[in-house]
Amino acid sequence: MNRWLTIALAVIAMSSAATARQNPPNGTELLFKLEAQFAHDVAQHGHDAFLTWFADDGVEVEDGDGIATQEDRRKQSAWPEGTTLTWTPVHGDMAASGDLGYTYGNYVYKYKDKTGKMVTRYGKYTTIWKKQKDGSWKVVLDMGNSSPAPKTPQ
Amino acid sequence: MNRWLTIALAVIAMSSAATARQNPPNGTELLFKLEAQFAHDVAQHGHDAFLTWFADDGVEVEDGDGIATQEDRRKQSAWPEGTTLTWTPVHGDMAASGDLGYTYGNYVYKYKDKTGKMVTRYGKYTTIWKKQKDGSWKVVLDMGNSSPAPKTPQ
Repeated sequence: MNRWLTIALAVIAMSSAATARQNPPNGTELLFKLEAQFAHDVAQHGHDAFLTWFADDGVEVEDGDGIATQEDRRKQSAWPEGTTLTWTPVHGDMAASGDLGYTYGNYVYKYKDKTGKMVTRYGKYTTIWKKQKDGSWKVVLDMGNSSPAPKTPQ
Repeated sequence: MNRWLTIALAVIAMSSAATARQNPPNGTELLFKLEAQFAHDVAQHGHDAFLTWFADDGVEVEDGDGIATQEDRRKQSAWPEGTTLTWTPVHGDMAASGDLGYTYGNYVYKYKDKTGKMVTRYGKYTTIWKKQKDGSWKVVLDMGNSSPAPKTPQ
């Protein structure tokens, strides 16, 4: 390889590395990716997926009920067949230290009522994420509340 | 003062300073203090107090409604006379960088219904706090949902 080309490529590589240091991965992007993985897991495994994504000291601030610990949640029944919960983050933010962050957004919850008819409920959520001692990310708080049904059903 | 006593006191002072460095003020304690000040201000100034405690980009994730920006909230009416909102944090946590934290807990909301009768609603809340560029702490997210009425009314 041409000597000057080698030097030029080395300079570009060093410059890129410096830029990467100046612009570390956006914390909110990481949180959105975690939300997508969490949502994918819930789509596949329902209620049980919540248990694996929560920190041991994580809580569900349950709409219409109390503050459920992981011990409380393990006692809850699995979702009946046909239940789905999907959600989409709207915004998020991460602490400067990159160990605590949150997202909030909208959810759609579908389930069969007592007569077997599918019912859709709309709502909003907040999830707070905390990096654990082993480097994994877990949910330390999840909370939902209701929204009016959209004018155009989703 | 006795020379050895002076030295002993100096050693104790240095030791205390080292301990203080190892144990900086607990972030959760700071958040609980902020919640108490915020609640005190709401008790005195009602709905208007929310506007001063929120960051410009802060949101209220409104139960039964949408995600309200500060612009949305400024358009909302002041609370009718007799309305009160009080809350008590149960738990909180702070990022290692000390710039982002949250608390969650229980609230009691009292208001007059259309007939003038006082109604009490119970619920839970999550508040996310973020240190602003000027060093002040503001709410970036507040969210509430409902709880069953306690067996012993509060």
